[in-house]
Amino acid sequence: MQKIYGFKTADNIVAGENSIETLKENIGVVGNKVKRALIVTQKPMQNLGFVDIITKQLDEIGIKADVNTDIIPEPTVKSIEDISGNIRKKHYDLLIGVGGGSVLDTTKILAVLETNNNSIKEILGTDLVKYPGIPTVLIPTTAGTGSEVTPNAIVTLPEEQLKIGMVSRYLLPKLVIVDPSLTIGLPKSVTASTGMDAFIHSLESYISNKANPISDMFALRSIKLISSSIVEAYQNGGSIRARENMILGSLYGGMALTAAGTAAVHALAYPLGGKFKIAHGVANSMLLPHVMEFNMDCIADRLCDVARSMGIKENLPADKTAEKVIERLREWIEILNIPQDLSVYGVKKEDIHGLAISASKVTRLLDNNPKKLSVKDIENIYSKLLR
Amino acid sequence: MQKIYGFKTADNIVAGENSIETLKENIGVVGNKVKRALIVTQKPMQNLGFVDIITKQLDEIGIKADVNTDIIPEPTVKSIEDISGNIRKKHYDLLIGVGGGSVLDTTKILAVLETNNNSIKEILGTDLVKYPGIPTVLIPTTAGTGSEVTPNAIVTLPEEQLKIGMVSRYLLPKLVIVDPSLTIGLPKSVTASTGMDAFIHSLESYISNKANPISDMFALRSIKLISSSIVEAYQNGGSIRARENMILGSLYGGMALTAAGTAAVHALAYPLGGKFKIAHGVANSMLLPHVMEFNMDCIADRLCDVARSMGIKENLPADKTAEKVIERLREWIEILNIPQDLSVYGVKKEDIHGLAISASKVTRLLDNNPKKLSVKDIENIYSKLLR
Repeated sequence: MQKIYGFKTADNIVAGENSIETLKENIGVVGNKVKRALIVTQKPMQNLGFVDIITKQLDEIGIKADVNTDIIPEPTVKSIEDISGNIRKKHYDLLIGVGGGSVLDTTKILAVLETNNNSIKEILGTDLVKYPGIPTVLIPTTAGTGSEVTPNAIVTLPEEQLKIGMVSRYLLPKLVIVDPSLTIGLPKSVTASTGMDAFIHSLESYISNKANPISDMFALRSIKLISSSIVEAYQNGGSIRARENMILGSLYGGMALTAAGTAAVHALAYPLGGKFKIAHGVANSMLLPHVMEFNMDCIADRLCDVARSMGIKENLPADKTAEKVIERLREWIEILNIPQDLSVYGVKKEDIHGLAISASKVTRLLDNNPKKLSVKDIENIYSKLLR
Repeated sequence: MQKIYGFKTADNIVAGENSIETLKENIGVVGNKVKRALIVTQKPMQNLGFVDIITKQLDEIGIKADVNTDIIPEPTVKSIEDISGNIRKKHYDLLIGVGGGSVLDTTKILAVLETNNNSIKEILGTDLVKYPGIPTVLIPTTAGTGSEVTPNAIVTLPEEQLKIGMVSRYLLPKLVIVDPSLTIGLPKSVTASTGMDAFIHSLESYISNKANPISDMFALRSIKLISSSIVEAYQNGGSIRARENMILGSLYGGMALTAAGTAAVHALAYPLGGKFKIAHGVANSMLLPHVMEFNMDCIADRLCDVARSMGIKENLPADKTAEKVIERLREWIEILNIPQDLSVYGVKKEDIHGLAISASKVTRLLDNNPKKLSVKDIENIYSKLLR
């Protein structure tokens, strides 16, 4: 546990069913001078009508909004810099990101590129962004990354087959709208992988070496909400109650990881995304039980707290209770149809060493892991996912 | 419960034992241009050496700091405007408040007076402050008001014998430092009254008509922390563990009330402070069991959740469990030596009607109460405190 710890988050958060309809009345917190906004999103969100709900409200208060739907999943440096080049001459004074983690991360980076005379590569890493970006409003449409409240953005470097994080308080938005109704129509597979991702943020924050009383509060609340609702959200996507629990669980997961950081699951997932384009939530979910088993002898006590928040009530010794947590995670992976075989994505035995070397370089996250991992340990974990 | 709800807080929070020593490294979040700071505090905090810890660090990074110790308890409009008049010509670019609720509230108001060409009376009420103030750092030295993370500041109007709130997001600070070691030396009576005040923030937020999932999380966590530690902090003031639980409980209480508001306890306490100068925490604590008894038929279910967070485990029907909560509050009041007789403060039978009329005007808070109070209801509650 950290002795001195911190907390920061988005300037304003508005939540609840249909809260997207309050954008107009809440946009004042961004500042009074907004004239031209850009909505950063993807085609599916536009087709679902989310963009119209926003532009209609902006129109009513005299803000002209353009729409950019060029955001790619697991965005590359080049894809973001291309968009940045295109929009710079338009002098937008507000960016509104509407989408999952890829869209929100792209929006955050675009905002700081507007005001910092840097390439993305120059400001990748921790605290290298010099100036605040233009203001952002972030509206998540998955219950997953928690990106709306983190100072992090992840980009893919295809040439290096890596995913790297940009971390800066200037990536935090002015306003977040957390509306569960936007997640009602999510495909089942996305509900599953993003929901597991949110859970992993909280679980890894809770066992992180940087865990602290503030991150613990968010992590355990998130774990409780997600545990009570992930299967229901998957099986009965129309349940607004389950969707609200999931999107709040994701929000708190973002707050927890901002305060405590994620750990080895995330570190090992990045090379799978960077080299084999496995979606972030899927890679995390695949790795989860195996990394937790590896960690087990260091985290049994913490997993007992997790068990309580998950509603696991059996009266067992600490190590048995901790095993029950991993058992439950395996049950979810089964029910949610999350793959457990890397070869489906083209990973071969001979790729394992290279993946492990890449993962071992993600020290920003591995340093948070309660148990040290050698390259050999990482290879062993990847190997368990080769069937 | 509110369907659409929000959350906002201080830009940056740093917490933990001796976190005050990190002011120097964290002050960057205020901006890079700070040259002249004013430390707003009171003599006792200066005598305890807290001001020196701060000025030494500021000195090392080239920030010149003056100190103002003129802040009075339960500050009046005039006392704050006098200080404002004196400091305006000095053009400070940062205010650092070090103290309890009175100091922090004064600091917040001084900061917006610097940039808004208004008298205090012109901006009392909700959202009447037009421009952001100069930046503030708030460092609580009691575990009580949670003022460090609320957009509220309370002032006394002696001529009207009233206490009124200023509510504006511009009152939120850039940086909060929550260091339990600063509360180790608190007098027992202050530990008691401010600790109860913090508990009441969370309890009232939890039963508020504006309660919501976000405020509930902070409220229940706060209730848990304070319940586990208030008696220990009182009886064994040197326990850093108890002090950390209390100051985090107070922080979360501030977050809860920002999101959900307080209710009748606070509304009825204000006239007692305004007319009879009863300290805020004491007035709240005196009223607490009586207001909760009045509310009982509307809040029994919510009090069952509170009971769980308080560690009340007896397996009883809802109404009996709720009664146990009030019983526990009465036990605390006894142990913490909190007065239960208004006549000690000079209140007479003939004052009750006037007090009730004043309280009935605090509609900002009474509207949050789950049960409507007539003037007669309020008179009845005050009368129970006249022995």
